[in-house]
Amino acid sequence: MPQQTAGRILSIQSHVTFGYVGGKAAVFPLQCLGYDVDVVNTVNFSNHSGYGRFGGARATAAELAKLFELMEQNGLLLCERLLTGRHMIYWWMSRYAHSIVGYVPGAEALAAVKDLASKMKQKNPELIYLLDPVLGDAGRLYVSPECIPIYREALQYSSVITPNWFEVEVLTDTRITDLASLRKALRVLHEDYHVPNVVISSIPLKAWLRAALPPAAQPTDTDSTDADFLACISSSTDAASTSTVHARCVPCLPGYFSGVGDLFSALVLGHFQPAPSVPSSASAEAGAEQETPLAHAVAHALSKTHALLTLTHEHAAGLPEADRLPTDEELDAREPERKVRRMRGRELRLIQGQDVLRGAAGTEYFRMVPWGGFWDEP
Amino acid sequence: MPQQTAGRILSIQSHVTFGYVGGKAAVFPLQCLGYDVDVVNTVNFSNHSGYGRFGGARATAAELAKLFELMEQNGLLLCERLLTGRHMIYWWMSRYAHSIVGYVPGAEALAAVKDLASKMKQKNPELIYLLDPVLGDAGRLYVSPECIPIYREALQYSSVITPNWFEVEVLTDTRITDLASLRKALRVLHEDYHVPNVVISSIPLKAWLRAALPPAAQPTDTDSTDADFLACISSSTDAASTSTVHARCVPCLPGYFSGVGDLFSALVLGHFQPAPSVPSSASAEAGAEQETPLAHAVAHALSKTHALLTLTHEHAAGLPEADRLPTDEELDAREPERKVRRMRGRELRLIQGQDVLRGAAGTEYFRMVPWGGFWDEP
Repeated sequence: MPQQTAGRILSIQSHVTFGYVGGKAAVFPLQCLGYDVDVVNTVNFSNHSGYGRFGGARATAAELAKLFELMEQNGLLLCERLLTGRHMIYWWMSRYAHSIVGYVPGAEALAAVKDLASKMKQKNPELIYLLDPVLGDAGRLYVSPECIPIYREALQYSSVITPNWFEVEVLTDTRITDLASLRKALRVLHEDYHVPNVVISSIPLKAWLRAALPPAAQPTDTDSTDADFLACISSSTDAASTSTVHARCVPCLPGYFSGVGDLFSALVLGHFQPAPSVPSSASAEAGAEQETPLAHAVAHALSKTHALLTLTHEHAAGLPEADRLPTDEELDAREPERKVRRMRGRELRLIQGQDVLRGAAGTEYFRMVPWGGFWDEP
Repeated sequence: MPQQTAGRILSIQSHVTFGYVGGKAAVFPLQCLGYDVDVVNTVNFSNHSGYGRFGGARATAAELAKLFELMEQNGLLLCERLLTGRHMIYWWMSRYAHSIVGYVPGAEALAAVKDLASKMKQKNPELIYLLDPVLGDAGRLYVSPECIPIYREALQYSSVITPNWFEVEVLTDTRITDLASLRKALRVLHEDYHVPNVVISSIPLKAWLRAALPPAAQPTDTDSTDADFLACISSSTDAASTSTVHARCVPCLPGYFSGVGDLFSALVLGHFQPAPSVPSSASAEAGAEQETPLAHAVAHALSKTHALLTLTHEHAAGLPEADRLPTDEELDAREPERKVRRMRGRELRLIQGQDVLRGAAGTEYFRMVPWGGFWDEP
C-alpha cells in the first residue's frame, strides 16, 4: 500500500447512488492504488440504466463551467509551471498529473469538458489525459450525434483513449471488418487525431481477428469457441511516430456486467507510467522487455478486471434462482422486478475484491503479446 | 481485509470535487472497512467553504424525493421482511442495515431526507441510522433556523447521533455550563427525543469539565494546558433505559482541519455493532468488559481519526512556508490565495492513511473510560 501520494487525478464521470458504474466503478479502485481522486459528477442518478427504471439530475454545461472556474480561482485545477525548485515540485504534486473523463450528458456539457481539457493540456503538456469516448456499443449510438464531432476534437488532448470497437468505428468513420480496416482505423486515430495511446478492449473474437492475432495472443484452449473469449488490442506511438501494437485474449464470463469498461479504463490510467520505469515483479517474465508503458498498464488492468469479474460471477452464481433468471425481453417487460433482481446480483464486487485492486491478492497476469508485423501490408 | 460484505450503507451527504469533507471524508473509509456504500450527493460543490471561494449545485427536495422513489421502485431502498429463510438472509444483506446522514441543504431537502428515515425505520426497525445534525459550531448557526425543528423530529429515527457541543445545546435548548446542564441535555436527547446513542466529540476542555471527568479519562500529562486536549463523551441507553456514559480526552493538534467530524461519524458507524460480539483484540484489555457497543465504536473512531490527523498535521508541517501561513483574517481578506494555500495543505490524508482506516497499521487505542456516577445528583 502506498504511503506516499501516487498523484492527483481529476475524474469527470457519471455518478449513481446504487451500484458500480461510471465514477462509482472508477474512483474507489484509483483510491486503492494511492491516488487522490477529485470527483466531478456529471449526473447524479439512482442506478444504471440497465435496471429499466432510473433517473436523477444532470449537470448542465453552465454548472460544470462554474465548478471548473471556482477550482481554477482556488488554484486547484491548473498546473503552475512558473515556480521553480522545491516549490515547483510541491505545486506539481498538488495539481493534476492525470485526468479521466467518462460519460458526460449531452453535447453542451461535453464541450465544457473539452474546453477544460484544452486548458489543462496547455498549462501542463505532460498531463496524462484518459478519454473514454462514450458514444454507444454494438452498433447502436446512445448519445446525441452532436457529441461525435466534439469527441473527435477532444482526441487531440488525449494521452490514452479507451473506446470500444463500435466507438472506434464511429470516431474514425471506418467499418472494421478485416485487418486492413483495423490498421486504417488505428492509423486515423494516431496520425489524423494525434492520439498516442489507443486501447480497445472487450472485442468479440471474430474468425478473421482470431486468425490474424499472433499465436501467443490466441486462446490456448483449442476446444473453446470464439464466444468464450474477448480480445484486447493496444497501440502506442513513440516520439518517432512508430506504433507498437499488442494483443491478448481473455476468457469471457457469461452474461452482462455493467461498469466493466469504467473499471478497466480507471485501472489503465492507474497503472500507466509513461516514464521508463523498473519492470514490476509481475511483468519481469519472458517478453517483458518488449512491454511498452501502455502494454504494461493494459496487462495490469486486464488482470485485475478479470479477477474482479470472476469474483462477481461467482457471487451471482450463488444467489437464489429468482436473482439470476436469464435475460428474456418479453418476460422482463412483463415483470420489471425480474430484470432488477438480475442486475442487482451482477453489480461489480469492488469492495469485496479490494485486495485485488490494491495488488495485495495474487491474480493471473494477462501479459500483452507484441503483434509483430501488424503494420506490414500483405 | 474483509472478503465478505460488511453490509450496505446509504450515505446522504455533501460532495466536493476537491478535498475531503462530507461524503468525500466518509465514503472511502467505510469502503475500506468493507461496506458497500450507496452515495446520495446532497450538493455537488467545488471545494469546502473554508476556501472562501466555493459553490456548485444543490439537490432540491424534489430531486431527492425522486431519487428515493426510483430506488424504492427498484427494490433498492427498503428492507423486505416478508421473505423467509435463505431468501430473507439475502434480501437483508442487499438492503440497508445502516444509513448515515450529514449535511443536507435547506429545510425542504432536509424534510425529504427525514421522511425517508421514517419510511426506512418503519420497514426495518433494526436499521442503524446515524444522524449528524449539521446546524453550526462554536455558538454560530450556519443553517436556516427552520432546520432545527426538522432535525428534532428526525431524532426519533436515529440510532446514533454525533452532534457537536453547540448542536447539543441547540437541539435540547439547553446552555451547557456545568455537569448539571450536561446531564439535563443528555436526558432530553435520551428521554424526550428517544435517541439511544449520543456521541459528542471535539469538546473544548473547559475547567469545570476537566474537573468533573473521571480521573482515568483526564489528560495524563500534568504540564499540559486545557487547550492541548479535546474531550469526547458518549452516552448509550439500554432496553431498560439505563444510560451508560463514557468519556476520554484526546490530544488536540494545532490549527483547523476540515472534514474531521464527517470522518469521525463514518468511523463510529463503521465500527458500531449493536449485537453482543466477541471483543476485538484491541479492546481485550483491562476494562474492556465494561465497553458498550457505542464506547467500542467511539474508541476505534477516535483512534483512527487521531492517527489520520497526525498524518495530515505532519504533512502540512513539511510544506513550504507559503502553504502554512497562520490564520490572519485581515491578511487573508486582502490576499485570498493565502487562505486557499493553507486550506489545501490541511486536507485530510485519507488516501495516504488508508492502512490506518483498514486497521492494518497500528494506532494508539483511545479506550473510552466509564464515567461511573455521572447521573448521581450531588
